Amino acid sequence: MHIFYSETIQNGYIILSDEETRHCTKVLRLGIGAAINCIDGIGNFYTAEITDITKRNVIARVSLTQESFGNHQFTVRMAVAPTKNIDRFEFFVEKAVELGVNHIIPILCDNSERKVVKTERLEKIVIAAMKQSYKATKPTIDEITPLRALLKRPFSGVRAIAHCAQGEKRSVKQFDKPTEITMLIGPEGDFSADEISLALTQGWIPFSLGNSRLRTETAAFAALHSVHLSWTDV
Amino acid sequence: MHIFYSETIQNGYIILSDEETRHCTKVLRLGIGAAINCIDGIGNFYTAEITDITKRNVIARVSLTQESFGNHQFTVRMAVAPTKNIDRFEFFVEKAVELGVNHIIPILCDNSERKVVKTERLEKIVIAAMKQSYKATKPTIDEITPLRALLKRPFSGVRAIAHCAQGEKRSVKQFDKPTEITMLIGPEGDFSADEISLALTQGWIPFSLGNSRLRTETAAFAALHSVHLSWTDV
Repeated sequence: MHIFYSETIQNGYIILSDEETRHCTKVLRLGIGAAINCIDGIGNFYTAEITDITKRNVIARVSLTQESFGNHQFTVRMAVAPTKNIDRFEFFVEKAVELGVNHIIPILCDNSERKVVKTERLEKIVIAAMKQSYKATKPTIDEITPLRALLKRPFSGVRAIAHCAQGEKRSVKQFDKPTEITMLIGPEGDFSADEISLALTQGWIPFSLGNSRLRTETAAFAALHSVHLSWTDV
Repeated sequence: MHIFYSETIQNGYIILSDEETRHCTKVLRLGIGAAINCIDGIGNFYTAEITDITKRNVIARVSLTQESFGNHQFTVRMAVAPTKNIDRFEFFVEKAVELGVNHIIPILCDNSERKVVKTERLEKIVIAAMKQSYKATKPTIDEITPLRALLKRPFSGVRAIAHCAQGEKRSVKQFDKPTEITMLIGPEGDFSADEISLALTQGWIPFSLGNSRLRTETAAFAALHSVHLSWTDV
């Protein structure tokens, strides 16, 4: 069944936005009486029936609401330096939504080649990936944040940094079923020595993803998947 | 140091191809006496010095050869249905090389929307990813292969199929340090019931990647990463 995204659900009725309405009526050619699914970004998955179509909106009556749909038992925040080639970062964002990330924080590091990201565009990618992967809760995407400011934020749970410099590190496998974790992934060229030192001083735990030399977006995906895998029941 | 790819190494000298020569002399502007690294696709990592530059080739004298460079203790074959949008499949190929896949087999399934892949283009992606991630052994990429033919091939080691239909499945975590594994990942729309039934009859083991609804390329990446993670020392 077709799935839509709407943040406007009132008195048991879903109102689709301009864009979703166009897709619903012009592309999919759905009419009154058609059954649709809808997610609202805050955890609800609706089954509904179209009852009205105006010039700008489709209105659908909710017949079933599933709350906290598909939610995980754990929270993962990924703080990742956007890549020079934005396609790679966008690909990570899409994959992260599929796997069920909760929060993405683009970070600005000493070696960052990309200093700007359009979060509006990322939001669109997030919503498309949510629909594709049946996620009812929308991950948060922050504006780009300087790493030094982020390091000082009092995140609860495990706080971990993946850097490539020498030094003792935990394996990502040692974060066994973390209920809350924040992971930092650096830019092409890694975190600077000064950034690593500051992170360690602030109590961030250095961790390793194995022996392969991974690109930023690959490392971010691998780190996120590792956490999910630790929660997968055998 | 700059890294090049060449399959022509003779009597302690590396000969770069036309394309690599252009990159070396025109883009990087390296001259006689410059130090370079080179991989040959069969496991050797060379350190060398440019001794001669002709119109079409750069020639470099090998000063150090590291054999079986960066090889894993295990072999992974990924048989994956190419996605309708080829970018997604190419992205998987790149990521698979970064993680260290040994063999990629594009498969043709009942529900495949894409029936053709240009392996020549994939070869280029493989070589670029090898250089980027310091892999000296080139993964093999087969021509697209009908799934039914593949299912009958006598691969040694674990043979596993990730399908979305109901039924008892192992978790991917249960493939603990497989020394040799072949994993099948289906197209958008999954394997057909007939294909799944045939695979099970032929002794392929059904496995699951968790609860998320993943795209083909995401599932393939996650499956490959899971095997690598099982081999990562804690």
